Amino acid sequence: MIALFTDFGWSGPYVGQMHAVLARDGVTDPVIDLMHDAPSFDPLAAGHLLAALVPSMPRGTIFVGVIDPGVGTARAPVVVEADGQWFVGPDNGLFDVVSARAADTRWWHITRAPERRSVTFHGRDLFAPVAAHIAGGGAVPGRALPLPQYPEDAAADRGAVIYIDGFGNAITGLRPPKNRMVPVLKVAGRCLSRRRTFADAAPGEALWLINSMDLVEIAVNRGSAAGMFGLSVGTRVNWGIN
Amino acid sequence: MIALFTDFGWSGPYVGQMHAVLARDGVTDPVIDLMHDAPSFDPLAAGHLLAALVPSMPRGTIFVGVIDPGVGTARAPVVVEADGQWFVGPDNGLFDVVSARAADTRWWHITRAPERRSVTFHGRDLFAPVAAHIAGGGAVPGRALPLPQYPEDAAADRGAVIYIDGFGNAITGLRPPKNRMVPVLKVAGRCLSRRRTFADAAPGEALWLINSMDLVEIAVNRGSAAGMFGLSVGTRVNWGIN
Amino acid sequence: MIALFTDFGWSGPYVGQMHAVLARDGVTDPVIDLMHDAPSFDPLAAGHLLAALVPSMPRGTIFVGVIDPGVGTARAPVVVEADGQWFVGPDNGLFDVVSARAADTRWWHITRAPERRSVTFHGRDLFAPVAAHIAGGGAVPGRALPLPQYPEDAAADRGAVIYIDGFGNAITGLRPPKNRMVPVLKVAGRCLSRRRTFADAAPGEALWLINSMDLVEIAVNRGSAAGMFGLSVGTRVNWGIN
Repeated sequence: MIALFTDFGWSGPYVGQMHAVLARDGVTDPVIDLMHDAPSFDPLAAGHLLAALVPSMPRGTIFVGVIDPGVGTARAPVVVEADGQWFVGPDNGLFDVVSARAADTRWWHITRAPERRSVTFHGRDLFAPVAAHIAGGGAVPGRALPLPQYPEDAAADRGAVIYIDGFGNAITGLRPPKNRMVPVLKVAGRCLSRRRTFADAAPGEALWLINSMDLVEIAVNRGSAAGMFGLSVGTRVNWGIN
Repeated sequence: MIALFTDFGWSGPYVGQMHAVLARDGVTDPVIDLMHDAPSFDPLAAGHLLAALVPSMPRGTIFVGVIDPGVGTARAPVVVEADGQWFVGPDNGLFDVVSARAADTRWWHITRAPERRSVTFHGRDLFAPVAAHIAGGGAVPGRALPLPQYPEDAAADRGAVIYIDGFGNAITGLRPPKNRMVPVLKVAGRCLSRRRTFADAAPGEALWLINSMDLVEIAVNRGSAAGMFGLSVGTRVNWGIN
Repeated sequence: MIALFTDFGWSGPYVGQMHAVLARDGVTDPVIDLMHDAPSFDPLAAGHLLAALVPSMPRGTIFVGVIDPGVGTARAPVVVEADGQWFVGPDNGLFDVVSARAADTRWWHITRAPERRSVTFHGRDLFAPVAAHIAGGGAVPGRALPLPQYPEDAAADRGAVIYIDGFGNAITGLRPPKNRMVPVLKVAGRCLSRRRTFADAAPGEALWLINSMDLVEIAVNRGSAAGMFGLSVGTRVNWGIN
């Protein structure tokens, strides 16, 4: 299947035009709108989200990842294969986390020119056609690259909020702690305790939990953690000891 | 076909992950995003909406209904068959209205365990796989239940706002009045008259009409009824006599 | 393929019910959500957007266009064929721009009655079934019309904002200037210069560019042009000389 992972939002024709290109180019596999509100302007935070979503998707999925504040500038268009999954998009950090954590990874620089010489919508004019080409069994239209120098912390956890969902839950780049003591999470001057699920806290009570992506998430039962603590993408969080 | 009816909203990866699971599990029938902003935390109001939408969907449709504030707690996961339609989701009132109004209904308690032992996303890890299993012709993976004790008013109309749409129109749980006098609708201290359609009122004028789901809806021509009257889900409305 | 172009927004069951009808009526071609936040209550502005999107869609696409503030009143339901593309929806200006610009165009008045005698949701009960019928190879269920009298400026550019996207970029109804001098764009008392792409301006700097629909767009690099200049649909813009 093909999975779209972008910061386009659902307004405007942008998502629809991606689907139209994939259909035009003969894709018959399912095309999944995995996420269209990944953090804009922070490709590495988006990369932590993407890396957390990848394990629940079938082997062979082609991810079209478009968080691309530098569209039309010199950042390279790339294809990445990591442990049997494919990634098509800009080389701006978005694919560094998934690649740095993979056992087996390969990179290509896309050498095909965008259709229509567009400078602002490579998602539609370059990345979607390349994904359709690969989905159809074609060779990657590019040249092999050496593995990139990842940012130092690409493979590590990210001690910060990387996404606020529609309920006001704040997802962090932290994965479940490995030691057996249950730590507390320090955020905005407060120490939060772990709960198994939202409903294990009293209504209005703050908590952290391991969410459905296996990331640490800050929540308030029947409330908004982002609103209560003034959280936004980038807010730092740290482990403490209970 | 399979129809998704949730309170997930369109932000985040939640809807996309549902689609991914259905595709992974081999569903080839169309998967329809019927609604993803059903009222959170009020499964019975959501149940009135669902019951109003069901008649316009083809016989045999499998509805995956996830309004599930108690996810991970003891509420039972169920499958319901009601007059040839199927419903998969939590037993928290969401399916009571459609079941109480059906001529022929059966309930099962799902006995399959969620995948990945997730506690916060049974939509992805339990309900979607069960729906895919049924769509593929499999037997319901559960044991038959006696019919539940519905809430007293499950089959009756609900004299309250159950949904505010993106235009600010307020949908109520009232069905069209059966007597031939055209009554007025009392809401927020005002008496509204019936119009056939939005444009039959002057711009800015409030009205009620029978909407496309055969429910009574409060609207303002080219304006927001919710804004004008301060309506929200739960606001009471009553019939009056003209 | 079939492309949906509406002002329904993504909230509520409206988009989902369109898809359900198309699936029920046997459509197996891809159904694309091209755009669901076209400007409400301004069908001619929506028509300029639609005309800009049409060239990137495959020949033979059937557009279901529902911007229909007069639903249930006397405006005619029509089918339009323009240069090998099809359009189904209300005759209220929405299709005038694309038709006035086409070399070859034909109009029909739909004579089929809406299903369920609904007065508020012709998208679901009339336009989607007609589109499915045409997609299945059926004849247009209507009678041929003479070409309409288009509004005087239907084929011309529109010197106004016609859409604000989710990033706050303001799309105008102006097409790229044909003379070789690069003009400035006058908006809200300011003169903006052309840039090739967002990132060619400094962060926070305003610009205009030719966007991915070949329309003139007002943007702020990593900011909101709509917020900075107080733009909304209908705000006038004009060419100046640099």
